[in-house]
Amino acid sequence: MLELAFTPDRGHGEPVYRQLRDYLRDLVAAERLPLGTKLPATRALALALGLSRNTVAQAYDELIADGLLAAHVGQGTFVTGPRQDGARPRPQRDEPQRRFVWSGLFALRARALTLPPGLIAGRSGRKRFDFRGGQVARDALPAGEIRRAFAHALASDLGAIAGARDPYGLEALRGAVARYLVSRGIACDADDVAIVDGAQQAIDLVTRVLVDPGDSVVLEQPGYFGARVAFTAAQANVIAVDVDDEGLRTADLARVLRTRRVKLVYATPAVQSPTGVVMSAARRRELLALADEHQVPILEDDYGSELRYEAPPIAALKTLDRAGQVVYVGTFSKVLFPGLRVGYVVAAPPLLEKMMLARWNANVTTNVVAQAALAHLLATGGLGRHLRRVRTVYGARLAAMLAALAAAMPAGTEWTRPRGGHSVWVTLPPGIDSGALLHPAWEAGLRYLPGDVFCGPGRGGRHLELSFANHTPAEIRAGVRLLGALAGKQRPRSRRRT
Amino acid sequence: MLELAFTPDRGHGEPVYRQLRDYLRDLVAAERLPLGTKLPATRALALALGLSRNTVAQAYDELIADGLLAAHVGQGTFVTGPRQDGARPRPQRDEPQRRFVWSGLFALRARALTLPPGLIAGRSGRKRFDFRGGQVARDALPAGEIRRAFAHALASDLGAIAGARDPYGLEALRGAVARYLVSRGIACDADDVAIVDGAQQAIDLVTRVLVDPGDSVVLEQPGYFGARVAFTAAQANVIAVDVDDEGLRTADLARVLRTRRVKLVYATPAVQSPTGVVMSAARRRELLALADEHQVPILEDDYGSELRYEAPPIAALKTLDRAGQVVYVGTFSKVLFPGLRVGYVVAAPPLLEKMMLARWNANVTTNVVAQAALAHLLATGGLGRHLRRVRTVYGARLAAMLAALAAAMPAGTEWTRPRGGHSVWVTLPPGIDSGALLHPAWEAGLRYLPGDVFCGPGRGGRHLELSFANHTPAEIRAGVRLLGALAGKQRPRSRRRT
Repeated sequence: MLELAFTPDRGHGEPVYRQLRDYLRDLVAAERLPLGTKLPATRALALALGLSRNTVAQAYDELIADGLLAAHVGQGTFVTGPRQDGARPRPQRDEPQRRFVWSGLFALRARALTLPPGLIAGRSGRKRFDFRGGQVARDALPAGEIRRAFAHALASDLGAIAGARDPYGLEALRGAVARYLVSRGIACDADDVAIVDGAQQAIDLVTRVLVDPGDSVVLEQPGYFGARVAFTAAQANVIAVDVDDEGLRTADLARVLRTRRVKLVYATPAVQSPTGVVMSAARRRELLALADEHQVPILEDDYGSELRYEAPPIAALKTLDRAGQVVYVGTFSKVLFPGLRVGYVVAAPPLLEKMMLARWNANVTTNVVAQAALAHLLATGGLGRHLRRVRTVYGARLAAMLAALAAAMPAGTEWTRPRGGHSVWVTLPPGIDSGALLHPAWEAGLRYLPGDVFCGPGRGGRHLELSFANHTPAEIRAGVRLLGALAGKQRPRSRRRT
Repeated sequence: MLELAFTPDRGHGEPVYRQLRDYLRDLVAAERLPLGTKLPATRALALALGLSRNTVAQAYDELIADGLLAAHVGQGTFVTGPRQDGARPRPQRDEPQRRFVWSGLFALRARALTLPPGLIAGRSGRKRFDFRGGQVARDALPAGEIRRAFAHALASDLGAIAGARDPYGLEALRGAVARYLVSRGIACDADDVAIVDGAQQAIDLVTRVLVDPGDSVVLEQPGYFGARVAFTAAQANVIAVDVDDEGLRTADLARVLRTRRVKLVYATPAVQSPTGVVMSAARRRELLALADEHQVPILEDDYGSELRYEAPPIAALKTLDRAGQVVYVGTFSKVLFPGLRVGYVVAAPPLLEKMMLARWNANVTTNVVAQAALAHLLATGGLGRHLRRVRTVYGARLAAMLAALAAAMPAGTEWTRPRGGHSVWVTLPPGIDSGALLHPAWEAGLRYLPGDVFCGPGRGGRHLELSFANHTPAEIRAGVRLLGALAGKQRPRSRRRT
């Protein structure tokens, strides 16, 4: 008897009998179950697969209805399809010609892997306005500085760095990052810094070394989707703690920490993702005191504190960390561009050591040409010059976005008023769902990430994120006008009547 | 009472009572258990931590012996150290000043993370001869071609690629890789290809989506250490199948597959890592037939088939794969340089899709500048030109290595005679251990990876890998002469007497 390697996916949403039906159908199509094969009795197969007999019977019934199987009373169930020309089995060949069946082979843990719908899609289709987060001002890239930095890296360092496989990263870049961070009030030196492929890898690595399946982690609500998918992929129990206009609600966090053993608190104190809110000084002190009381590490994702358009730059939570329990993550993705895939972590030696074991396992180290180029860009002050320029650009785009929202959105729409970062968190008037609006927006060439992406499936309701990084003020005005018109059309009739 | 977050590491090798002792000592040192604190009774703590009472008692006893704790009959056990000036507790402050205690906080799964000792170490110390694998000929890098390719990527594409976050990689590079692979007999197009950060990431991603903790995977013995650490990190049950001069012993594999449900077979058919053996045609057919019979996917790590110094290039196993069950992995790390961190995977769509979910989670995508540069290098034929040049370089180094081994190693030494790849697998005469030789070699400025790294702890015995990629023929001769002299000194006396 053929070994049936079917594992039901209980979290999948689709009934198990249908999963089994599709699995068997794949086997027949791939001729792994050739014409005429006698299938195991439902009781035997149910036993072998750990399913109920009824589940197997239902799967067989559907395949009989489809004409792929036939039941002969007293004899058993046989494969009769798929119908071939003349309905005769194809002759066997020496070489394996049968298609390999992947369904049922995946690891249970692979089922926890997800991506926000609509994040990547968009290779095809008209895309006039892309307000999805994570982009930068492409027209403001410091192309000349970057070209020179890469040329310098390749001219002077290639032989020395070509074979690099230290997961901590290049000494030159770690030193340059440490000096940059010291200038921003974070006490560290090169040995405390590890280079990673952007904030996402830092989140993934911290999760790998601290979180077992079923462990609890705290995420802001709404919160960064990259952290959500990483925690979900690790089969963590994700506990959402609300954000208000002072940032993470530490009183709510205190309740959670009193009642659950939490392995990690993820936070974006400088520019909360996606609301753009700055965490207040009082909340910062409370957060650190709670983390100390309960001995819980904090993962500070400081992706955006350099992108501050009013007043002085925002200090990192890490500057207040005396105990070494804040894992600090920064990135060049927002300051330069995300395709660079370079970020950095500052963490206590025992944690950093474990993370770097995971790091080598994952992908050894970060592209050394990019590392050397960035070290040069930091050492020559190129990054600082670019930051000063780009703050003006983003400041104007933020202002344009806020003005456009006021001018074009239906009455009852609300939004945050960030003073930094890349995006505004919008709440549509009651009765308008950001998920329902997604399709007409997509059709009209307008892209955004709906609230579900930041709040969890079915919980994003009227919320959506609009990033202003990717478009000029004129484009922002036109795009928000389009969004406002589409939202207006979605207004429920009952509401328009009142 | 302070919450004690201690989890014993059963696979650690160190007795649990010592782990607990160290944990408590850390707490005392960090003043999380201040002077005068009364510790829980051994019975209570044993219950709370799920340990035996004896384990807790032993830990307390050692700390009492160290003067950190004191037991008062009828009263309990108290913290008495570490000794301060005047032995008085420090006054409490408002700010948390206590060091955060990381021991005991790590995930159970993090304990499976390892790295071969000696792989990365070597930032310091004299390093005259580095025969560790994974390096390339730094003096033969196509520096000009690489500079031009990066300059082209930054000049023409930066705006278009800056925001890329498609985990599959840049369309241009996927297409160029597909055309390159078709020219080598692998039927695929751009949609079957995903760009990854070198072979290590491909191994990690395949493992993430196919292997649950406790699942069985097959690895060649000796086998590539990067695969070993990835499988170990995934908490897999690693089954070693021996390699002989025709490659993986398929008869042994057949026995394993008959008796175990194996999730994945890892193989390096073109240039076996680390022996350099080419898998015979008969074994290739047997491997595919076995994989078909047992419906097990094969992960083909084809890191080195381009590096062939005699006769025509070696075909990939993938060229024989009609069923789509071979996951094909290639890399630019050996052909260009490892710090580039760019490789590729060809796999069936259902698998590739899951891998790309894991990929986004891990680190989103590969550095886009490097991707665009490589696409240019492939399109302009720069890679092919470099390959033709470098084959001559490596061929001469391989010949020098083989001649040097014959000239300089003690009688009884054996080694493989590869016709491609980067390294030779050496077996020292009976009585000489490659691990014991490591220290004197290190002291003399000679680096190599001992057999344990490829065979598992304690099983590498007399074996070691010597990579010839990193040194000129003259350096190779001098380095092997040094190794031979050191090995001669290690000869056991009993042997020299006979």
